[in-house]
Amino acid sequence: MLPIFNFSAGPAVLPYAVLEQIKRDVPSWQNSGMSVMEVSHRGKDFMAAAAQAEADVRDLLQISDDYSVLFLQGGATLQFAMVPLNLAGQSDVADYVLTGSWSKKAIADARPLCSVNVAADGTDGHFTAIPERSQWSMSDSAAYVHVTTNETIAGVEYQEIPDVGSKPLVADMSSTILSRPLDVSRFGVIYAGAQKNIGPAGITLVIVRKDLIGMHRKSAPRILTYEAFATSDSMTNTPPTFAWYVAGLVFSHLKSLGGLEAVAKINKRKAEKLYAAIDVSDFYSNPVDENCRSRMNVPFVLSDPALDGRFLAESDAAGLKNLKGHRSVGGMRASIYNAMPEEGVDALISFMQEFEKQNG
Amino acid sequence: MLPIFNFSAGPAVLPYAVLEQIKRDVPSWQNSGMSVMEVSHRGKDFMAAAAQAEADVRDLLQISDDYSVLFLQGGATLQFAMVPLNLAGQSDVADYVLTGSWSKKAIADARPLCSVNVAADGTDGHFTAIPERSQWSMSDSAAYVHVTTNETIAGVEYQEIPDVGSKPLVADMSSTILSRPLDVSRFGVIYAGAQKNIGPAGITLVIVRKDLIGMHRKSAPRILTYEAFATSDSMTNTPPTFAWYVAGLVFSHLKSLGGLEAVAKINKRKAEKLYAAIDVSDFYSNPVDENCRSRMNVPFVLSDPALDGRFLAESDAAGLKNLKGHRSVGGMRASIYNAMPEEGVDALISFMQEFEKQNG
Repeated sequence: MLPIFNFSAGPAVLPYAVLEQIKRDVPSWQNSGMSVMEVSHRGKDFMAAAAQAEADVRDLLQISDDYSVLFLQGGATLQFAMVPLNLAGQSDVADYVLTGSWSKKAIADARPLCSVNVAADGTDGHFTAIPERSQWSMSDSAAYVHVTTNETIAGVEYQEIPDVGSKPLVADMSSTILSRPLDVSRFGVIYAGAQKNIGPAGITLVIVRKDLIGMHRKSAPRILTYEAFATSDSMTNTPPTFAWYVAGLVFSHLKSLGGLEAVAKINKRKAEKLYAAIDVSDFYSNPVDENCRSRMNVPFVLSDPALDGRFLAESDAAGLKNLKGHRSVGGMRASIYNAMPEEGVDALISFMQEFEKQNG
Repeated sequence: MLPIFNFSAGPAVLPYAVLEQIKRDVPSWQNSGMSVMEVSHRGKDFMAAAAQAEADVRDLLQISDDYSVLFLQGGATLQFAMVPLNLAGQSDVADYVLTGSWSKKAIADARPLCSVNVAADGTDGHFTAIPERSQWSMSDSAAYVHVTTNETIAGVEYQEIPDVGSKPLVADMSSTILSRPLDVSRFGVIYAGAQKNIGPAGITLVIVRKDLIGMHRKSAPRILTYEAFATSDSMTNTPPTFAWYVAGLVFSHLKSLGGLEAVAKINKRKAEKLYAAIDVSDFYSNPVDENCRSRMNVPFVLSDPALDGRFLAESDAAGLKNLKGHRSVGGMRASIYNAMPEEGVDALISFMQEFEKQNG
């Protein structure tokens, strides 16, 4: 079989070393005679693995003791509801910056739960740019300001998150978390579904400033409060233990690579060479403003869309998997998260050049 | 290494054949060159596996088209909130039958969300019996009646669920689902966290009668409505794909054993021989009424609790793992879910007899 490079937007490729460890650990984890799926979350072995995962992600992201680190279920989508329930009252205003499909979903799910002010809206530009901070129209009374640091469909990413003053800044970082160093102290809440840069779908990392815990509205179901998880080591009910264990393996793997500075350097190089290959050609194009191109999701179109089918069939046959663009934008999309090796990007670029030669 | 028998109450033992399949499928599932954790939930391969899992569980439980089968996150605990949000208004009454720790938790989480009527309460008997149906004090206006079919801590299980008339009957079946045949048509909602009889923690099976879908209160977050999942093949957001895949392997495994009639026969035999070994001895005892002893969780105490430590150390050394009873009842607990082989129960009984000989 050819080597495979999996460009899926998520659930996405995992580090090969992590997959090997998962395989070794079935059916017996830590010489217990049991897999990690079969042990109590409250047993000392799992508790130790869970604590190590938290310590490692705190280390990677330099998270201070002012923050709780939670491991929840429900994906980023559950956070679309938990954020307003925990940080705003029913009639409170919350500012949202609309930069693409994911912030749009966050807004739609928040609307019934608080008073959403869309502080900036990239719709007219088809989400190929992030509205300048100077154009954001924020509410004085906003309970928080919500941003989506990367939009996986349009392929736009904040290179710097603008200053929003003293309001708690809330960020959906599902597709950028751990892809570069981060100043956590600028944020009130950071949340991220696992299935891009953390681990398997089914676990959500939530980093919440401790002074924001316990402010949930009284009508919120207990299981939707940050407090319930912050006061129980994320074990107010049985956590998704396998996904947590894999997340721990990924954190440890990232540390072994040299941490997020090292990871960011590779990610930057991967993205730059792929955008360069697109830009140098008239055969491929990417419509996103250069100052907010995503390092994680690189959409591109062929000058002749009639060739899309052939491109996809031939790239698939060459071991370059899941390059089909999202139906809302068409064309191709290469998701190149942390676990995409640089060789995968190189192989894609070679394929693109060869395909252009044959069909250009 | 000795053969291990894992009596964990949950997350619990998985069928060995399923673990072997999981191991084979990493790092390449279905010859894709990718693990199941790394593929899109919307790709045709995963969609097919998800649909097969649903078809198999429908077949095992003989679920009619009048019901939706949902695969959710959040465990049974999230259902403690979703049930009232979906079936009752804020001021509506809901009847709950209190038979142990889990129904107590369900009640505590429902109280802020609707008006709970505790229709029957086993507290005074220390949950060693299930209150007779004739003693249940139900509300005429109840939106639903909630039961917990098995209590993992006290070890009590309904052998038959009493008739509750025309009200929707809602059951937490986390620890009995798939352990015996079930007449689904008697229920409005059945829910079950996976980590006992279905698969790894992090996925919840919910079986909802279709006429009860769409009745959620308007203030409920969208992601907490059955409707959102029933109208999207449980993919309104990224589902916990790995856990779903494992659940599918378990369903298929149960079918290969001959379905739930066959499984129930083994479970009955396992439980009967263990209770018989306890009852025949003055050294061991189980306080639960014989007509509601759990087939899944068998708590027992030694006549001399000073021997508990030795029992646990020696049983552990003999490969009989995780027999410590819940701290609230002390002593021992053998959880003997579907995946506990009969040889494990035989080994436990032999050990108990030998231990009694040495220490009795």
